[in-house]
Amino acid sequence: MADEKKLVEKITSREEDFASWYTDVVKEAKLCDYSSVKGCLNYFPNGYAIWENIQKNLDDRFKKAGVQNVSLPMLIPESLLQKEKDHIAGFAPEVAWVTQGGGEKLEEKFCIRPTSETLFCDVWQKQVKSYRDLPLVWNQWCSVLRWEKTTRPFLRSREFLWQEGHTLHATYEEAEERTKQMFQVYYDFVTQDLAIPLVCGKKTESEKFAGAEDTYTIEAMMHDGKSLQSGTSHFFGSGFPDAFGIKYLDKENKLHSCFETSWGMSTRIIGAIIMVHGDDSGLVLPPRIAPTQAMIIPIAQHKEGVLEKAKELLKILQDAGIRTKLDDSDKTPGFKYAEQEMLGIPVRIEIGPRDIENEEVVVVRRTDREKINVKIKDLPTQLPIILEAIQKDMYEKAKDFLDQHIYSASNMEEMKKIGETKVGFIKAMWCGDSHCEETIKAETGGFGSRCIPENQEHISDTCICCGKEAKHMVVWGKSY
Amino acid sequence: MADEKKLVEKITSREEDFASWYTDVVKEAKLCDYSSVKGCLNYFPNGYAIWENIQKNLDDRFKKAGVQNVSLPMLIPESLLQKEKDHIAGFAPEVAWVTQGGGEKLEEKFCIRPTSETLFCDVWQKQVKSYRDLPLVWNQWCSVLRWEKTTRPFLRSREFLWQEGHTLHATYEEAEERTKQMFQVYYDFVTQDLAIPLVCGKKTESEKFAGAEDTYTIEAMMHDGKSLQSGTSHFFGSGFPDAFGIKYLDKENKLHSCFETSWGMSTRIIGAIIMVHGDDSGLVLPPRIAPTQAMIIPIAQHKEGVLEKAKELLKILQDAGIRTKLDDSDKTPGFKYAEQEMLGIPVRIEIGPRDIENEEVVVVRRTDREKINVKIKDLPTQLPIILEAIQKDMYEKAKDFLDQHIYSASNMEEMKKIGETKVGFIKAMWCGDSHCEETIKAETGGFGSRCIPENQEHISDTCICCGKEAKHMVVWGKSY
Repeated sequence: MADEKKLVEKITSREEDFASWYTDVVKEAKLCDYSSVKGCLNYFPNGYAIWENIQKNLDDRFKKAGVQNVSLPMLIPESLLQKEKDHIAGFAPEVAWVTQGGGEKLEEKFCIRPTSETLFCDVWQKQVKSYRDLPLVWNQWCSVLRWEKTTRPFLRSREFLWQEGHTLHATYEEAEERTKQMFQVYYDFVTQDLAIPLVCGKKTESEKFAGAEDTYTIEAMMHDGKSLQSGTSHFFGSGFPDAFGIKYLDKENKLHSCFETSWGMSTRIIGAIIMVHGDDSGLVLPPRIAPTQAMIIPIAQHKEGVLEKAKELLKILQDAGIRTKLDDSDKTPGFKYAEQEMLGIPVRIEIGPRDIENEEVVVVRRTDREKINVKIKDLPTQLPIILEAIQKDMYEKAKDFLDQHIYSASNMEEMKKIGETKVGFIKAMWCGDSHCEETIKAETGGFGSRCIPENQEHISDTCICCGKEAKHMVVWGKSY
Repeated sequence: MADEKKLVEKITSREEDFASWYTDVVKEAKLCDYSSVKGCLNYFPNGYAIWENIQKNLDDRFKKAGVQNVSLPMLIPESLLQKEKDHIAGFAPEVAWVTQGGGEKLEEKFCIRPTSETLFCDVWQKQVKSYRDLPLVWNQWCSVLRWEKTTRPFLRSREFLWQEGHTLHATYEEAEERTKQMFQVYYDFVTQDLAIPLVCGKKTESEKFAGAEDTYTIEAMMHDGKSLQSGTSHFFGSGFPDAFGIKYLDKENKLHSCFETSWGMSTRIIGAIIMVHGDDSGLVLPPRIAPTQAMIIPIAQHKEGVLEKAKELLKILQDAGIRTKLDDSDKTPGFKYAEQEMLGIPVRIEIGPRDIENEEVVVVRRTDREKINVKIKDLPTQLPIILEAIQKDMYEKAKDFLDQHIYSASNMEEMKKIGETKVGFIKAMWCGDSHCEETIKAETGGFGSRCIPENQEHISDTCICCGKEAKHMVVWGKSY
């Protein structure tokens, strides 16, 4: 097992240095690295395959929710970006500008999209005339660019991959409902397919998206107790559509404003998968989105019949729709185990001469190394059950961790003390004033408002900062 | 049928004005339109759904060929673009430059990728050390930007969607083999899934990709006889890898050059689908990539039981994996027929009270309006057979058209005459000199070299331009 030790030694332990652990896992599992293009990432096959499965599962959910995919340009003319004043104020400082094209200086400069509300509105302004043209429920999978100063793999980079949904509606209510519907789609996807439990609700005024009336967020707790904003759904009211002059005629030929939403999830979510589920042996991937769900590792593969049987098994499992691979390289089984664990492959299947004699294999779960003997003939039906059990166990484990790391504070002293001695989220009351929000963050060493949950609890009567009447129970946390 | 006529009247006939016909179809089928961002397109749901199916089918073929997907940045630093001299010479005039980011003038400017050979080489230079690291067979689905002056929907736009595959190999032979393998993947995909017959072979020196040793091309003939380059596969030898200092150590620890390929197919191919298969009623989509394969149109839908039966049928067909929709709007059946034809949906299924009584439906093929009575209970098994028959018939029809429009010329006079009186391709001999190639194009009013087919024919002994000994039989044609 010398090999195995060597491989795992490349990873710093989580308790020793969580940030180094994260960087090590990303590197050793060959997910992505920093490009020579400052602040941008190269997504390698192992990392991109996770994104492809996320895309596939989430896009299926979108299509069931009536979403249609489109593709709009990556460039936005300066004049277009400026049409909605809060929006330009929010994004102007962090955009990149194209000023030369085809060998000439351009008359008007273009920014590379940091997000595409303005482009969607521009298209709709030309297309929407009557109530018959509504609703429009569009989405695009693309990359966007924001000129970030500090970057971390998956968590923050200048260019990142995401989907951005944009919808337009005839009524306020319908748009609000769509905002919540897509928020629910994210919630279901992340909890069910990624096995990540969530805290969710509305963002406070100061944390909202530039130009939005309401922003709904799903927040996941990483192993170090920090929060990762994992998906947001924004309700714009008619602010954007009005700024772009989008109006529709109803059945009585009367002119009305339109109402808009947008919602996005990005490659950040891969960072959440790593930091929620990973352990000191590397990545742990939820079976539903793992590019490889099972790795067959032959034992004593030089012995007659072993490799043949392993290949036979590979075909049977692939035909059964299980994403399976066979490691028939000349590395030792121990090294192969360590590699399969590093990559977060949910189960390995050990098959050796004695197993073949007994017509069985040993299935080893990545999460807890539990060994399960399974008859070869039962594997195509048993393996999906084992994988779903792992999926469920991963959620339960993460949910326990989340529950154990949410605290309540009824005054500032309590909150400070929790902040100093624990990692996690803190529930505390707030008056609604952004000044108090800032003070709380400053005095607790970084506990910002994560969200105002829909399920409100009454922890105390007054804002823990100013002592005035409390309006909301807020979940506070440090964040990525 | 007044409605139907009105809808079709919006399309210019192909014989009257092919260019207007094309523009009308793109517009009326709501595939895409020009964006306010000059030279860029908005891909709408109807158009993007075709691209999604192309992506899905082609990506499945890639994965079977051992391709792994990745994602590299959209920006290329100027110094990186300049590393391979032929490449920068080819692309510099048509790139867009980012010169400002995050509110500041950048020290080094970045171009938006026009193609990504330089970025892939930059990654490989850091990753590849030993023969164990090879081969690398990577691909990315993304958009690229080239500052084109004139644009046409799908055919030419500043930004366009595509896939670009890039591979690196230990030997010349392996890289050359991969170039041909991916060329074959394109050929199979376009002929089998898009029902488009092809002429294919190598490009001449002057038509090759900037920096490539060999470019293989698949060329499709549009209904107006012009050629559309539909996919290319490039063999680079070791030029690019050497320019980037990519070397590997073999088993004996000796240092060697690497060999590279790249290959791409873009949204242009949607233009080919339109111009090969479309007719005066609109789009005609090959069943294998049609977003909707069957549209159920109820007849006398206000009558009891009709809509219920139609909905029942919809579910049965969807469950059988056939991409089916139901048009239960309050438009007349005639208008619905015209709409279904405009959108190129392969079959419509008419179901009315009498059909229900007979437990059957009428299936109408988009291609030739042939009506087929099918028992409702047989539809889930019969419809796939009908769709595959349409797919085959579409290919045969297009193949007949192609064969009937390829001519041979054994001297310049013959070629000029064909060029003046016919539309299509011309086979003629060539000495290999690019000067003759230019002269032929100029004197025939635009017949450029499309490719040097692998299956050479001997048409005459000498180059039709200079009279020197002929080296190749070339297929010549006007092109998009």
